[in-house]
Amino acid sequence: MNKTPRIFLLISLAVFLLCRALEAADPSGTETYSDTVPGLKYSVNFTWVLVGAFLVFIMQAGFALLGGFLRTRHMLNYMAHCFTDTTVGALVFWLFGFALMFGGSQLASGLGKGDAIIGHSGFLLLGQSYDVNTVVLWLFQVMFATKAVAIIAGAVAERTRWAAYLIYSFLVCGLVYPIYGHWMWGGGWLGSLPFGVGARDFAGSGVVHAVGGIMALIGAWAVGPRIGKYQRDGSPTAIPGHNLTFVVVGTLILIFGWFGFNAGSTLAATDLRISIIAANTFLAAAAGAAIVLWLSYATTKKPDIMLACNGSLAGLVAITGPCAYVPIWAAVVIGLLAGLIMRGTVWLVESVFKIDDPLGATAVHGANGLWGLLAVGIFADGSYGGVKGLITGSGYQLLAQFIAMATAIAWASAAGFAIFLTLKYTMGLRVPRNVELDGLDIHIHGVECYPAEERYVGELEKMVKRHIGIYEVVEAEEEIPEAVVEKGRPLTPGSRK
Amino acid sequence: MNKTPRIFLLISLAVFLLCRALEAADPSGTETYSDTVPGLKYSVNFTWVLVGAFLVFIMQAGFALLGGFLRTRHMLNYMAHCFTDTTVGALVFWLFGFALMFGGSQLASGLGKGDAIIGHSGFLLLGQSYDVNTVVLWLFQVMFATKAVAIIAGAVAERTRWAAYLIYSFLVCGLVYPIYGHWMWGGGWLGSLPFGVGARDFAGSGVVHAVGGIMALIGAWAVGPRIGKYQRDGSPTAIPGHNLTFVVVGTLILIFGWFGFNAGSTLAATDLRISIIAANTFLAAAAGAAIVLWLSYATTKKPDIMLACNGSLAGLVAITGPCAYVPIWAAVVIGLLAGLIMRGTVWLVESVFKIDDPLGATAVHGANGLWGLLAVGIFADGSYGGVKGLITGSGYQLLAQFIAMATAIAWASAAGFAIFLTLKYTMGLRVPRNVELDGLDIHIHGVECYPAEERYVGELEKMVKRHIGIYEVVEAEEEIPEAVVEKGRPLTPGSRK
Amino acid sequence: MNKTPRIFLLISLAVFLLCRALEAADPSGTETYSDTVPGLKYSVNFTWVLVGAFLVFIMQAGFALLGGFLRTRHMLNYMAHCFTDTTVGALVFWLFGFALMFGGSQLASGLGKGDAIIGHSGFLLLGQSYDVNTVVLWLFQVMFATKAVAIIAGAVAERTRWAAYLIYSFLVCGLVYPIYGHWMWGGGWLGSLPFGVGARDFAGSGVVHAVGGIMALIGAWAVGPRIGKYQRDGSPTAIPGHNLTFVVVGTLILIFGWFGFNAGSTLAATDLRISIIAANTFLAAAAGAAIVLWLSYATTKKPDIMLACNGSLAGLVAITGPCAYVPIWAAVVIGLLAGLIMRGTVWLVESVFKIDDPLGATAVHGANGLWGLLAVGIFADGSYGGVKGLITGSGYQLLAQFIAMATAIAWASAAGFAIFLTLKYTMGLRVPRNVELDGLDIHIHGVECYPAEERYVGELEKMVKRHIGIYEVVEAEEEIPEAVVEKGRPLTPGSRK
Repeated sequence: MNKTPRIFLLISLAVFLLCRALEAADPSGTETYSDTVPGLKYSVNFTWVLVGAFLVFIMQAGFALLGGFLRTRHMLNYMAHCFTDTTVGALVFWLFGFALMFGGSQLASGLGKGDAIIGHSGFLLLGQSYDVNTVVLWLFQVMFATKAVAIIAGAVAERTRWAAYLIYSFLVCGLVYPIYGHWMWGGGWLGSLPFGVGARDFAGSGVVHAVGGIMALIGAWAVGPRIGKYQRDGSPTAIPGHNLTFVVVGTLILIFGWFGFNAGSTLAATDLRISIIAANTFLAAAAGAAIVLWLSYATTKKPDIMLACNGSLAGLVAITGPCAYVPIWAAVVIGLLAGLIMRGTVWLVESVFKIDDPLGATAVHGANGLWGLLAVGIFADGSYGGVKGLITGSGYQLLAQFIAMATAIAWASAAGFAIFLTLKYTMGLRVPRNVELDGLDIHIHGVECYPAEERYVGELEKMVKRHIGIYEVVEAEEEIPEAVVEKGRPLTPGSRK
Repeated sequence: MNKTPRIFLLISLAVFLLCRALEAADPSGTETYSDTVPGLKYSVNFTWVLVGAFLVFIMQAGFALLGGFLRTRHMLNYMAHCFTDTTVGALVFWLFGFALMFGGSQLASGLGKGDAIIGHSGFLLLGQSYDVNTVVLWLFQVMFATKAVAIIAGAVAERTRWAAYLIYSFLVCGLVYPIYGHWMWGGGWLGSLPFGVGARDFAGSGVVHAVGGIMALIGAWAVGPRIGKYQRDGSPTAIPGHNLTFVVVGTLILIFGWFGFNAGSTLAATDLRISIIAANTFLAAAAGAAIVLWLSYATTKKPDIMLACNGSLAGLVAITGPCAYVPIWAAVVIGLLAGLIMRGTVWLVESVFKIDDPLGATAVHGANGLWGLLAVGIFADGSYGGVKGLITGSGYQLLAQFIAMATAIAWASAAGFAIFLTLKYTMGLRVPRNVELDGLDIHIHGVECYPAEERYVGELEKMVKRHIGIYEVVEAEEEIPEAVVEKGRPLTPGSRK
Repeated sequence: MNKTPRIFLLISLAVFLLCRALEAADPSGTETYSDTVPGLKYSVNFTWVLVGAFLVFIMQAGFALLGGFLRTRHMLNYMAHCFTDTTVGALVFWLFGFALMFGGSQLASGLGKGDAIIGHSGFLLLGQSYDVNTVVLWLFQVMFATKAVAIIAGAVAERTRWAAYLIYSFLVCGLVYPIYGHWMWGGGWLGSLPFGVGARDFAGSGVVHAVGGIMALIGAWAVGPRIGKYQRDGSPTAIPGHNLTFVVVGTLILIFGWFGFNAGSTLAATDLRISIIAANTFLAAAAGAAIVLWLSYATTKKPDIMLACNGSLAGLVAITGPCAYVPIWAAVVIGLLAGLIMRGTVWLVESVFKIDDPLGATAVHGANGLWGLLAVGIFADGSYGGVKGLITGSGYQLLAQFIAMATAIAWASAAGFAIFLTLKYTMGLRVPRNVELDGLDIHIHGVECYPAEERYVGELEKMVKRHIGIYEVVEAEEEIPEAVVEKGRPLTPGSRK
């Protein structure tokens, strides 16, 4: 290709982009802001929403640290999913995800076009959507979109092909999530159902967590269990992680970010309900952790802190939808039930369905996302947004919530089967057996997550082997049972390249 | 028990809770907020206090990471303390801690009842305390309460029974902390002493840190030193931790959160003193770190970064009480002295009192909490809240501060002895010897904190032992001296189950 | 020295400080604040800037965690640099750095004196600069200053003497950074150049990153490559780090903090452009990561997540200067180019210049800091601050930016050569060979960063050696090639003391 037309093309593109930028609504904010109470409201609300967005952003560090539940040799690959979800996902949501989700919502400048099914304005934040109000909404929402995808990473961890991951991540962040999101938040049909005030999902129990969690379940099912997860009789094996400090700290970072996730979702600090939303968020997390801690102690005499971490996350997922609508005591009840639902779902998925979900995404996000949708219809006390649940004596809102729940299941399942089965039967979802045994990190990314540690042990191994011939001895003497080989990084020869 | 009455009871409870919720003051915030300057002030101040609360929350991740000072095999148990303090503690403070502390303070709706000794309104945030203003106060305060307890965890780490921990944690978070807090902040007698403007403790040098730190000292004394801490001649041994990266990062997270702790304690961003509070906080931390760094270099030619981390924390604890009242140069002086006090107290506790405080909670929080209380009476320059210290030529405020300090010592000691000695002579404070040797993690929680690492080394050990008979050789050949066994996880057989 | 005069001196000093404090402008904020829209604006803007400052603070945890790129035995020393930069650096910036940088800027009370070259008012925040407005500016700026120094730590890591570090850190934080900063932001000559609106560097692509990055390059050159970095034929060796989880999480924390870095630099939330600044920041990071990820996949078939982390940081550095002036599509373009520039510079520095920069500070901060300065002059669309770049058809702004870039190169190079060469030829920059081989941690700080891990492996080694005589065998049998010895912590005797 001759270079002249290519350069001409680039210049044309730049000129076009510039022109669209010049059509902007209020990109400097000087028309929106003024030295009056209404002007200052914008500043207060921008501060609140932006800080909220930053908090939701840092949740990705929490998700990455939950990789402590995984094994050393797959850790980097899991974090690569989280990191790519955040960065490439942001570009996808900028290019078109946001437009599909919020086009037609009328929530800000340049979001006029769209219908009950899908939006179609706000692409690339160009033209009228190059506006301070539109962009603040985009920034808050892009953080959510990149989290929805990260939920799946935990369920398909330790065995998924990189290219397959890239494709599903792209589709979820760009299509599956935005479309359900449009129905609920973007002016679509769920939010305007003729029951109660229409379906409500304050900060996304359904939109983010149920959709992400259900797709996670289907992804985990499609890719199949990790080698060694199930024994020949079908009973599951606990595969220990590699760093539980990361899990505890990751959970604390997630709670930290969740304050922004939920309380930021008012999109305004002039809505003083934010204090109750934040308190509900914290208490549901506390209740979810406490009940699971008690349950583990009651049944095994061992307070299980890892389960308690997941219990607190379950409480958070469940309160995400109802956080603004329910009284404080109800947040505690929702959190307690969330912990129990999480525990039950883990058992169901692992032991009944025999699906291997390493980080428990289905139990934490899927099941409790659905529970959160229903909880709105049960516990809303009418003090906010006119949402009245069963406890006020009305069942209509619960009906709307039930429809939203059924829709989430149907949509996420349909999309999940379509995406994961297509991938499975075309390019393949799963890495080859030797890659899984050796570790995804070294095969896919060409590097180990803890190179020094590997070297220590590796050098020592070599030293021992070289000098006392253990290498041959082990090889000759015994056949190591498969379950043992799979659980830890095997020390026997042949498994590392 | 027949199920019908139980269900009836539950329904009655729900109805009761709902009714109390309906008696609420302003749970939606619509009465409190209005589109005027006074209305918008609420929004600005809510934003400030909520962000402050989130920052104080994330300090728990910092506390957890300080566990890098501990040994691998007890790490999870320490973090379990931190995590449970945060979650179960939040429920306790919601149920009654907050009501005991702020009842009668008149700081917000529903906090009318209480006297100079104890509060008794605001339980469960029900009734009139289901109000946006009350809940924002609760959220900020619950973060403080859960930190006060976490201070103790560091002092009794590596050897405390789980059940004993649960009980003292419950009592401290629900009673000991709230009652002293009521005296100072909740309308109690300390805050209204007839000297100066009454005792003042801006963000809790005394309320949070001195009380927590003194109880930590008594707890550490009651539970006794770790096996191997003191040699037969009584000289202390340095027990190295397992991950100093965690300690440095944890310290940085604590400083980060401390900005919310101190500057958030104005409960208002309309109080522009917040900038000076934040600067004082940072400079005291910097000064505490710098002096200890210099001291370690001057005495040993080795800049001790771990000690510098504790120095910065000491500076933060000391400035917590006076942060709003003192000029900037005084914050530096307070921080410098805090570093020295910390260093001296470590020596005193470890070498003179022979009390084993693994994370130095006594030195960092106890001693400097008391120093912070006094510092108000010395360095307050009268520019804020009318508080005038010695440097303005008046000694009355210092007298009030001295009374607050003496009260903190007396109250925390009395409560500490009562709780820890009762526990010690009834159920027992301390785990059995073999649990301590093997690690609390595996015995109490049934899992190791770094399972993969354990496996690496364990597998290699087994391989070596199996093939060259080191197992028997070591066992037969030598008796390993106790001090060696205790310091690291022993590699000899018999110590692991 | 007799003690009486010393005490007299101290009292005099205290009285002097107190008197200066009493000359304060508005240290309580009560004159600045009022219950009006203009009064409330202060509160909103204080909230925004303080939260921004806290976010910039926590970036230091991100920098510390990037030490995952380094080897275990030097990790603590690297973090000691970061931690000391933050704490001692803060004291230096309080004593005089701030006064040199912002004296004469008229940005707040007490900053009246200064000229186009250097400032000279605001020392110790005394007198008229003991004012809520001045202190809020100081707090935001001190966070920047302590970051500029931390950039250098990554380039000279694993081989620099402690005393040499202390001196250059002091000079950079107290002189080099503030003086260039004064020229750009403090009322100096660069900001008032007669081209365009004068040179503009919104949040410090040039001031913080180019200056820090160029000095990092010179420091790395002066101290020389690490042992084992270059083979005898001059080809570079990849020296693997020890913990890539730390690198990913550290990068996420840096992005988190960067939102405060860039969007906080408006110093006002009444400037609604903050939403576009934050979005530009995020998209540039995303684009930088995405292009590098694609590039690594295209060339090696291995998506390189470590390089992608550095790509996102490169995007952030490049957008730091132009973030407020450019449209959103341009942020993506700037980020994409930043990733490529980073990749190219890594190759240039490592393979052409043969300079060993372990964390890639030159490529990330140096090269992209310069690119960020230029990008203002290219992509500014005129919608903010009247800054018009090439895309609006005007080249004058680009000229101003070019002068700023040339000045940054000249100033940082001159200062860098002066400082690092003086240190090199007087006290020496570099640790002795055995210190570098054994690890800076144990020699300089007297402790290892992961004591337990060391012990595990060490004990096992000893066990093996004692019983099968490998110790002697290894020593006798073979000479280990230097490159192998240098790369990992050697397991052969003699290298550890």
